[in-house]
Amino acid sequence: MEQIFPGVVRLTFGTPETDTPSRQIYVKPPRAEALAALPPAEFPFGAESIRFRTAARGCRLELPLTPAEDVYGLGLNLKRLRHTGKKRTLRVNSDPATDTGDSHAPCPVYFSTAGYGVLVDTARYASFYCGGNELLNAEAKQETDGKIRLTEAELYAAGARSSAPMVIDIPAARGVDLYLFAGPTLLDAVRRYVLYSGGGALPPEWGLGCHYRACGTFNEEQVLALARELREKHIPCDILGLEPGWHTHAYSCSFVWSKERFPEPEKLLQELQENHFRVNLWEHAFTHPEAPFHGELKPYSGDFKVWNGLVPDFTLGEARKAFGEYHAEQLTRRGVSSFKLDECDNSDFISTPWSFPECSEFPSGHDGETMHSMFGCLYMEVIDRACREAGIRTCGLVRCAHAFAAPQPFVLYSDLYDHAEFIRGVTTCGFSGLLWTPEFRHATSPEDYIRRLQAMVLSPAMLLNIWMMPNPPWRQLVRERNVENEFYPPEEQERLETLTREALELRMRFLPYLYAAFAAYHFEGTPPCRALAMDFPEDKRLREVDYAWLAGERLLVVPFRAGMSELTMPLPPGVWCDFRTGERHSGEVTLKPELGELPILVRENSVIPLADPVEFVENGMQYQLTLRVYGSAPEPARLFADDGWSFDYEDAAVPAWGTVDADGTLSAGLGKRYSVKAVERL
Amino acid sequence: MEQIFPGVVRLTFGTPETDTPSRQIYVKPPRAEALAALPPAEFPFGAESIRFRTAARGCRLELPLTPAEDVYGLGLNLKRLRHTGKKRTLRVNSDPATDTGDSHAPCPVYFSTAGYGVLVDTARYASFYCGGNELLNAEAKQETDGKIRLTEAELYAAGARSSAPMVIDIPAARGVDLYLFAGPTLLDAVRRYVLYSGGGALPPEWGLGCHYRACGTFNEEQVLALARELREKHIPCDILGLEPGWHTHAYSCSFVWSKERFPEPEKLLQELQENHFRVNLWEHAFTHPEAPFHGELKPYSGDFKVWNGLVPDFTLGEARKAFGEYHAEQLTRRGVSSFKLDECDNSDFISTPWSFPECSEFPSGHDGETMHSMFGCLYMEVIDRACREAGIRTCGLVRCAHAFAAPQPFVLYSDLYDHAEFIRGVTTCGFSGLLWTPEFRHATSPEDYIRRLQAMVLSPAMLLNIWMMPNPPWRQLVRERNVENEFYPPEEQERLETLTREALELRMRFLPYLYAAFAAYHFEGTPPCRALAMDFPEDKRLREVDYAWLAGERLLVVPFRAGMSELTMPLPPGVWCDFRTGERHSGEVTLKPELGELPILVRENSVIPLADPVEFVENGMQYQLTLRVYGSAPEPARLFADDGWSFDYEDAAVPAWGTVDADGTLSAGLGKRYSVKAVERL
Repeated sequence: MEQIFPGVVRLTFGTPETDTPSRQIYVKPPRAEALAALPPAEFPFGAESIRFRTAARGCRLELPLTPAEDVYGLGLNLKRLRHTGKKRTLRVNSDPATDTGDSHAPCPVYFSTAGYGVLVDTARYASFYCGGNELLNAEAKQETDGKIRLTEAELYAAGARSSAPMVIDIPAARGVDLYLFAGPTLLDAVRRYVLYSGGGALPPEWGLGCHYRACGTFNEEQVLALARELREKHIPCDILGLEPGWHTHAYSCSFVWSKERFPEPEKLLQELQENHFRVNLWEHAFTHPEAPFHGELKPYSGDFKVWNGLVPDFTLGEARKAFGEYHAEQLTRRGVSSFKLDECDNSDFISTPWSFPECSEFPSGHDGETMHSMFGCLYMEVIDRACREAGIRTCGLVRCAHAFAAPQPFVLYSDLYDHAEFIRGVTTCGFSGLLWTPEFRHATSPEDYIRRLQAMVLSPAMLLNIWMMPNPPWRQLVRERNVENEFYPPEEQERLETLTREALELRMRFLPYLYAAFAAYHFEGTPPCRALAMDFPEDKRLREVDYAWLAGERLLVVPFRAGMSELTMPLPPGVWCDFRTGERHSGEVTLKPELGELPILVRENSVIPLADPVEFVENGMQYQLTLRVYGSAPEPARLFADDGWSFDYEDAAVPAWGTVDADGTLSAGLGKRYSVKAVERL
Repeated sequence: MEQIFPGVVRLTFGTPETDTPSRQIYVKPPRAEALAALPPAEFPFGAESIRFRTAARGCRLELPLTPAEDVYGLGLNLKRLRHTGKKRTLRVNSDPATDTGDSHAPCPVYFSTAGYGVLVDTARYASFYCGGNELLNAEAKQETDGKIRLTEAELYAAGARSSAPMVIDIPAARGVDLYLFAGPTLLDAVRRYVLYSGGGALPPEWGLGCHYRACGTFNEEQVLALARELREKHIPCDILGLEPGWHTHAYSCSFVWSKERFPEPEKLLQELQENHFRVNLWEHAFTHPEAPFHGELKPYSGDFKVWNGLVPDFTLGEARKAFGEYHAEQLTRRGVSSFKLDECDNSDFISTPWSFPECSEFPSGHDGETMHSMFGCLYMEVIDRACREAGIRTCGLVRCAHAFAAPQPFVLYSDLYDHAEFIRGVTTCGFSGLLWTPEFRHATSPEDYIRRLQAMVLSPAMLLNIWMMPNPPWRQLVRERNVENEFYPPEEQERLETLTREALELRMRFLPYLYAAFAAYHFEGTPPCRALAMDFPEDKRLREVDYAWLAGERLLVVPFRAGMSELTMPLPPGVWCDFRTGERHSGEVTLKPELGELPILVRENSVIPLADPVEFVENGMQYQLTLRVYGSAPEPARLFADDGWSFDYEDAAVPAWGTVDADGTLSAGLGKRYSVKAVERL
């Protein structure tokens, strides 16, 4: 049991593999000072209580778990927040249709309500049996009552909680390193994991703004027309995304601008930049023969193709160089700020499977299984570097991540689209140092549309992904009609446009608050969006709340979905105030929001800074704040005041934190970025 | 490339594991004479065209596959008949909710329309990439058109068929034996696999009769009352099944009669036997501490418990002895004829997972993964032996099987219940030497009920599994009302009772025909129920027909489902006659059956023997046949005429085959079992 940082120990069992997450190029140095600043804590169990054994098929660990504990984490999970009693197999998959652990971003790290975390340093598709399987020689605590049942539901219903251990089944490996993260609280354990990973990502301020992705078939002129429309209608937008159509060939990708659709990309990029849009380009890593670096890359590729494209072995410097330098020279240095890294997970079970098999071989010696686990993280590293080389502090999108991804400025997304699952994704990601957007893509009704927009307001990214439709969604939500330019009546278009603008402007109002939340993620390890169970693990009523989350230090957001008219939910300890009315609640709350309202609750005694909404962020701009004050003894709000744009925050001797009091007083250093224009007491 | 039988070769790559299917106690001797009698055939490729390599995670095979080939097999599959282009992972699982290869009964054996089969002798959860993944150095045949798509469906739609190989990914193993089965036809290749496995199961005639499972909470008196009701109403029934309630403790199992519900089991068994019922008992293998042999079994059990029950290591003689001898002494020698072997698959991803982890250790050295694959087969072997020791030729139910299961007289079933999937299961099973019943359990409407009954008429087993309801389904289909004794109006009860009786009597009419089909399975390797693609692989229109099957030599059955009113389907080559009217069809047929009608087509020039329906089969009884003759040049029908009851057929020097001509002439030896009372020409 080797203490490597305060509250972080490493245990080695057997002979670990060499191709594990901790050994990869993308792993950042731990934030040692912040780790040292966390409260001291004991580990709930010692190394001697962990059992390890190997067998032909791999190795197995048994870790203690007590009946009172609940288990969270294991990556992005759209199906389940709390894993206690379940088996999770960390298979990288873009189609996690069932509650198995399949995920775009599985992570071999779990956290317990008892206040500790465990990272298993493996890129294998490990299985975690979270307390559901009793050992032969355990005392019988899983005894059933022996009653005869008449439905399958009764038959397989949970018995009494057992004292079964956490059993971890790691294929292929002959050994493994474990990292234990102490608390004392669950949130502290998560913080230690994030800080050990290098701290959370701090996107540039524009990365927290609104992101609109244009129709996949658009050409240069259509993109510019869309950009003009957004500005004319005052729809906030910081990032404009281009979908596959910018390539000469997509599926697989050429990474070369299509002359047909984009004859003058430099001019396009310049005009968009002048209008304060950051450009995000869609791509995946599978490299088509038309890509100029195809020949250079081929020797450093896996032994299976995907869509006739090369699969780069990003663990090798040569592959990173071929891929990354091209991106820097041709794209980021020419005005592209951001990327959407698609298809980097794995899709092997849909009607037409794609991606490389787990039994692939890569020149580095990695196989397809470990490569799938780490492919997203490797890809993010290459692209982040291509941005950095052009001086760009980026924030992108990605469809695969894993352990140690916390510092990467990329947000996960999915083609799967159930709204409850999209909301649940926000609650699960925080436990694994991941960011996730419940993006808007299409809607079955105006209500569905507005509710989906609202769900993003206090999420990691506000993303209108309109790649399927040529016209903005507020003109027509039905794709088939939108494609035919068949629009709603003018008054309905106007109503939806107004509701859209309101939702996006609400996002922009929260920008200073959210930016501070991300700074806390970066410097202190606190995830910006957290399940209620993370902050209040002792409250059993909150342990399965997967439809609401804590955003930043003071807010609790409860996104409604289409069809919901009322919700009664348990509240964490203390008094929580309605964001709009200031009405005080404790114990539980019943919410009945109008269509235009996103239910938000504020911790009593908070100062919430709200910015005048801007349509786009500017480098080092000053926000005009209105403070909303809740409660009679308000604590000052924290704000973060770097330029919001450059990498200076990384090297600053002291982080640019400051506070704003309920009376509007700003601490030193905040004035350049923030100005208080009003205070409202609720 | 070692020829072990005509048309059967074994190839060894690397160092195979020791715990593979071919090395298990349940593997029967190949039927050498029948193998030799098949037509000679060449293999479509040689050993030199197979590539093998090992890596840390296991080994990998690449086998040739041409663009024209389609791939079938890989066990019971409820989601997909044709596997071409797909990835299948043979994970044993009772909840195969998605199209991944998960199955109650995955089998590492596939067959090609090019007329060959490949058995991979592994109990690992191997993955088969069936021609969807091109190698790096392959010529680009999977090129996409590069067009920009606006829906996910278009995005991931199939491109042109590639020449990608069959890639097989076997975890953990350092080597593997392959068995290649030559054709010349696809059906011949399947026959070789079945015959190499020891030939298909030949159930006793009562095993092909009707099976009714009584309500799980019933006591002795209620079971007897049900038996009386069935006989009084002349509902055919050969097998009466008792659910968990017969145990003192179930989940896990005590295997001891509950004194409370069954105070006098001997008397019950005797009375049922006198009324010509075979008794089938539900159980699973997880052995509760109350089981008398628990102490004897414990040292030979896996290191995880399931529902506080032992998991027997059935690869060990000691475990088989403890479990099997108890069954023989206490159950089969006392009048129990048959068992339903539940929960022997694996359920690790439902809301409350159960079963043992894949990383379990067993005293024999097997791990949980290989044990899961083979557990059903091992369990069947133990139970079949316990029946044989009591002189009982059994036929039971089982929820897990694997390679080499063909000779085991057990039929697979599932808790999953989609009717289209249940029908598809019949079409997929034949390729892997498995039997499957699309059992009836409950219905959403009378139409659903009758259609589900009909779908079983020409399937391996006719099973009314009424464990959830105290009253017969024809009195009330809605479980909640059935439980409360709330019945349909008398005329509706009568209508449903009549329709039930008609469906069950139709099954009994086909008994001689079906028994001959099973004899052909046993002696010649021809599966009794076959996808159309198995007999007619050259006809591409039939390759995805997963809603109809060939039953025996002459019939094509097309079960309708609730909501279907009409179906037009392609027909195999030749003329096919409507079973009822004799109407001739070729090319395709449009079916519009009444509710009471099961669509059946007859190959032209057939004699179909139909028996006067009996309510139950008797040992060596004589069937009264009406011959239906279709076409002007009818071929005689084959019948099998052992006693239908004993094991004599196994040792007979010559199988008891005979024929019946269109004029009613029976060949020598058939007269004792069959008598022709009428001939109908259609």
